[in-house]
Amino acid sequence: MIIQFKQPVNQAIMQEILRKLKEAHYHGILVKHHLVIFDVDHLDLNQREQAAVAQVITKQPRYVLGSRVFQPEDTIIRTAHNQIGGANFTVMAGPCSVENQAMITELAAKVKTAGATVIRGGAFKPRTSPYDFQGLGETGLRYLRAAADEQGLDVITEVMSEAEIGIAAPYTDIFQIGARNMQNFDLLKAVGKAGKPVALKRGLAATIDEMLNAAEYIAAQGNLQIILVERGIRSFDSTYTRNVLDVGAIAVLRKLSHYPVIVDPSHASGHADLVASLAKAGVAAGAQGMLVEVHQDPAKALSDAAQQLTPAAFAPLVQQVQQIHALVQEPMQGPANSTSVMKKNVEAHD
Amino acid sequence: MIIQFKQPVNQAIMQEILRKLKEAHYHGILVKHHLVIFDVDHLDLNQREQAAVAQVITKQPRYVLGSRVFQPEDTIIRTAHNQIGGANFTVMAGPCSVENQAMITELAAKVKTAGATVIRGGAFKPRTSPYDFQGLGETGLRYLRAAADEQGLDVITEVMSEAEIGIAAPYTDIFQIGARNMQNFDLLKAVGKAGKPVALKRGLAATIDEMLNAAEYIAAQGNLQIILVERGIRSFDSTYTRNVLDVGAIAVLRKLSHYPVIVDPSHASGHADLVASLAKAGVAAGAQGMLVEVHQDPAKALSDAAQQLTPAAFAPLVQQVQQIHALVQEPMQGPANSTSVMKKNVEAHD
Amino acid sequence: MIIQFKQPVNQAIMQEILRKLKEAHYHGILVKHHLVIFDVDHLDLNQREQAAVAQVITKQPRYVLGSRVFQPEDTIIRTAHNQIGGANFTVMAGPCSVENQAMITELAAKVKTAGATVIRGGAFKPRTSPYDFQGLGETGLRYLRAAADEQGLDVITEVMSEAEIGIAAPYTDIFQIGARNMQNFDLLKAVGKAGKPVALKRGLAATIDEMLNAAEYIAAQGNLQIILVERGIRSFDSTYTRNVLDVGAIAVLRKLSHYPVIVDPSHASGHADLVASLAKAGVAAGAQGMLVEVHQDPAKALSDAAQQLTPAAFAPLVQQVQQIHALVQEPMQGPANSTSVMKKNVEAHD
Amino acid sequence: MIIQFKQPVNQAIMQEILRKLKEAHYHGILVKHHLVIFDVDHLDLNQREQAAVAQVITKQPRYVLGSRVFQPEDTIIRTAHNQIGGANFTVMAGPCSVENQAMITELAAKVKTAGATVIRGGAFKPRTSPYDFQGLGETGLRYLRAAADEQGLDVITEVMSEAEIGIAAPYTDIFQIGARNMQNFDLLKAVGKAGKPVALKRGLAATIDEMLNAAEYIAAQGNLQIILVERGIRSFDSTYTRNVLDVGAIAVLRKLSHYPVIVDPSHASGHADLVASLAKAGVAAGAQGMLVEVHQDPAKALSDAAQQLTPAAFAPLVQQVQQIHALVQEPMQGPANSTSVMKKNVEAHD
Repeated sequence: MIIQFKQPVNQAIMQEILRKLKEAHYHGILVKHHLVIFDVDHLDLNQREQAAVAQVITKQPRYVLGSRVFQPEDTIIRTAHNQIGGANFTVMAGPCSVENQAMITELAAKVKTAGATVIRGGAFKPRTSPYDFQGLGETGLRYLRAAADEQGLDVITEVMSEAEIGIAAPYTDIFQIGARNMQNFDLLKAVGKAGKPVALKRGLAATIDEMLNAAEYIAAQGNLQIILVERGIRSFDSTYTRNVLDVGAIAVLRKLSHYPVIVDPSHASGHADLVASLAKAGVAAGAQGMLVEVHQDPAKALSDAAQQLTPAAFAPLVQQVQQIHALVQEPMQGPANSTSVMKKNVEAHD
Repeated sequence: MIIQFKQPVNQAIMQEILRKLKEAHYHGILVKHHLVIFDVDHLDLNQREQAAVAQVITKQPRYVLGSRVFQPEDTIIRTAHNQIGGANFTVMAGPCSVENQAMITELAAKVKTAGATVIRGGAFKPRTSPYDFQGLGETGLRYLRAAADEQGLDVITEVMSEAEIGIAAPYTDIFQIGARNMQNFDLLKAVGKAGKPVALKRGLAATIDEMLNAAEYIAAQGNLQIILVERGIRSFDSTYTRNVLDVGAIAVLRKLSHYPVIVDPSHASGHADLVASLAKAGVAAGAQGMLVEVHQDPAKALSDAAQQLTPAAFAPLVQQVQQIHALVQEPMQGPANSTSVMKKNVEAHD
Repeated sequence: MIIQFKQPVNQAIMQEILRKLKEAHYHGILVKHHLVIFDVDHLDLNQREQAAVAQVITKQPRYVLGSRVFQPEDTIIRTAHNQIGGANFTVMAGPCSVENQAMITELAAKVKTAGATVIRGGAFKPRTSPYDFQGLGETGLRYLRAAADEQGLDVITEVMSEAEIGIAAPYTDIFQIGARNMQNFDLLKAVGKAGKPVALKRGLAATIDEMLNAAEYIAAQGNLQIILVERGIRSFDSTYTRNVLDVGAIAVLRKLSHYPVIVDPSHASGHADLVASLAKAGVAAGAQGMLVEVHQDPAKALSDAAQQLTPAAFAPLVQQVQQIHALVQEPMQGPANSTSVMKKNVEAHD
Repeated sequence: MIIQFKQPVNQAIMQEILRKLKEAHYHGILVKHHLVIFDVDHLDLNQREQAAVAQVITKQPRYVLGSRVFQPEDTIIRTAHNQIGGANFTVMAGPCSVENQAMITELAAKVKTAGATVIRGGAFKPRTSPYDFQGLGETGLRYLRAAADEQGLDVITEVMSEAEIGIAAPYTDIFQIGARNMQNFDLLKAVGKAGKPVALKRGLAATIDEMLNAAEYIAAQGNLQIILVERGIRSFDSTYTRNVLDVGAIAVLRKLSHYPVIVDPSHASGHADLVASLAKAGVAAGAQGMLVEVHQDPAKALSDAAQQLTPAAFAPLVQQVQQIHALVQEPMQGPANSTSVMKKNVEAHD
């Protein structure tokens, strides 16, 4: 149950209602001018209380803060160089791993020219085997930040532990939580407290509900600056593609949630010659940005050699996806009518 | 191993080579001006024989006839009202089931107006339960044919047995083999002999190789008029989408095979409000057509009520996917360079 | 809704109720002394009618005939040499394909000695590629029947089309429907009419409900002599096992349905050295029999070379699974208490 | 490549070889009396060096320390009250969450009586939603330890972060890493350094190779006290079972690795009435122990209400699985012959 107060919020009334809840042993949280109460469908409000309330919503999904029931309009995340979400289209690109300073400096210039406004690059790498290259750590972050600043780009980089959040915070604009850590709940809580935007990748076999509940761990810390990333799910056939890009999930996430949704075609395909097709498909399905691995010389990359694009292949892709984005662009969220559609949808699956 | 003869084929030499194979107990088949020999990598050819040969290909996938190794250029299927494949984009639409004459007559006019050139409609329905509506049978086919003829449309309809192929043959232009019958090998052989184009849907958990091998059952009967249909695969999450549309498979099938590839967003989504997103994604990934369920009053449909579009929702979708198709259109197959890419690709995965 | 009549059935009353249904445009079927009415929860019965009725069941799954709601006690299938189901344990074994007369004659003796009472062997083979060995056809069936008769064994063999049912009928005791044809509904209807026991294999990605509904296609033809075969499902990991044996499905099928359930560890594993472990697991989970591929010289087999056991490996396995079967044997179905458990279960998932 | 030195190791020679590797820029690690060298197939050894070497193994999987190539014989983990692995069978049981002191004290006595020698209980709970009960934390651990000590049981409990490892260390005998953290590589490294046995659960969609590589992260810290837990994988059908227990993986893990393998039937089934069947299947497939959720009053449990067994249902299950374990017990590892089988196996799949 969500009690949405009229603005400016009547603080006295709100405190009164909170007291009532406490006495009834109900659990509630306050976000913006909303009071979310769990496992409760009805609360008696007297006339004075009712007068202070704009709306009472009695059906909401468990991931309430991330839902369109809680916030009908798109979240737009503002960083130094970007507005992510809404009608904007954001291109994030860069190498799988930061391998040395020269390569990241050169790549930053190239992806900027091609149209990227965020540079990606791994310093802490989640590798299947402990004997594989594990990333350059803080040194890599330093290279990445310098390259980004030179070009006027934002930085996105992956963190895998609370300690790494602390190390990366001075260098990055957006934290990335990888697919393997989507349900690393302590990490989600920690990154929720870190006060910067978070790009959350879908787990390899995570349901849409699990992904939105994982995002809720971040949101429940008061951080609603969340980007949802579809990067392919595991299927029975990996002969030609590493994963299956779930374009339906992109469309569903756009409906259920107000967070920006972007597509990662690189990990979904696993093969450079399929990246463009998957990127275009993801954007046609509604993605508001893409996150693409680009490397000067993919064959010699220290990780993900098979799936990184050359800058030469990346540049025309950016142009094509921007055209598709313009073509399919339609307001996901109107003021009145479409809100009710969202609500109905959510209820149906609640 | 494929021996491609120079044209016109030197029949004497070809017969000589066939004799050699027979003596060596090798199994070979003749298609067009190609001799395909299984499980053999090398064959000694004398000078005269070599002179009659255009090219010897030593690596090919098991589904040889469907591969770009065998035929580099796109197959284009010509029906009364359509050219399917190549740079063309074909819209197929109509109800899940033909329910009565009035509805199919009305729908034929509406989907034609919206841009469809093929009408679909089930007369023999593969239903999960024996107690569900099983289709109108031949009566339904008669209605469908009449409606199509009135509008100048081709007909596509599903058959599930050899008997039904015989019944449907006078009424349909394209046979459809459903997902549940993708590996019904006797049906594939029978439809291969029927001499009409066949749209083969991917099985719910069929790999890309299995799908191409299933198509090969049809092709081995001498019928290369095959359309490959991606209609979504089964995944671990069916809360919001019935299946997961595998857009990567569309891109891969376009590369490996010369057959036209089309997308069925209706069965992939299972929910009408997701059909448009999936259709657009499929076309952005390279689909050369789409097959969409359309019904005047989906809520009252006798089958697939949840996923059918109204004509009003269908019409703007056609326009948008045609724009996307135009945008992503690029020759999949050039004369020299791209052929070699294909070959390399195929070999890598052979 | 199921109306179970007292026995002997009062025919006049039953006809009266059938007339009522017809007038109300309800669809009902008569099986044994039960009247099954679809999509109806309530029917007004007068006192006379009520007196003729033993029980009215208002909740039943769509696959009503196969459910324990319809028949609480285990089905036991009686063939010349076997009683399959209930507390019995049935061993079916033999080669993937009948390759020649000598091999099947020798194998029949060996599997009989090891404890098998049914011999399997493919004459019509569902092969992924049209260019693979397709089986010996009727010649193979003749060899198989002769070998079985010499040893006093029943025969089980796969059919893939209506035509093959006709060819195989004189030679086989049990028809097998393969995984790829689990939802070949025309085949299910045809084999339902053929009047012999049918072993139905679970499809590669078939849900339990879909499997029971597929069985219902056979049952709806009046043939309740059905054996359910769990043979492994497709998963994301096929590096070491071809499929994943779903032991949970064995336990669930035993609860929901009265049909015998057997395990096929050969297709589930795909590797001979895992067959024993999977067979034991399946039996521990409740399987009432096993279907195992055995070949004199697996490495030289014309199909499934990797997964066939030698007779020497097969014999001790039979002993061990029989011990496990004896250990886990408990009545799945008592007269009163457990029936209600079954009913509750079915309702919960209906 | 693994160089296994004769014992006692000739330290001078070993250092000499290490110097050689360094000069060649090869990466090697020393474990026990083995030198593991990555990405190298051949190393020239002079006569003196060869004399100090027992064996050179040139093919090994990436997860070398966990493989039977590195250690052919079973690992046996010794705790205060248990020897886990080898021919032993270990029963671990207890509630999903420690809810209060009384319940865990009572349960400890009951599971001990039923045959358990390890008590499980969650203090830090990985819940899908941040609004669900998150566990009692250190208070819960205190209760759990006290209950275990009173009964002479070992403790196993889950940790989800480096901080929780520190908190739990004084209270637990075995750390559990949950399925959602199987590839939380920083957590694996941290728990590897903690110096206590670790039970590693398979991820929901983790391949067998990924699981063994995850275990290798722990082993590479010098901790080979690892228990592998199969707890079911995600599939397309969750109507009746929450996950699919992969009994084939149990058999494969026993072959490839020397670590103890145990089965968790509770999370695999998700429904109490299926736990026994899955437990029996897992043990029949080769599991050397089981980890079962038991609760006095499952319906009132704060988490996993549907899948916990009552003590009354648990006790007879222990007896039955112990009988099955005795029945299927066979030496997985003999001195000579079976080692070579393992090696061959590993090579085949390397």
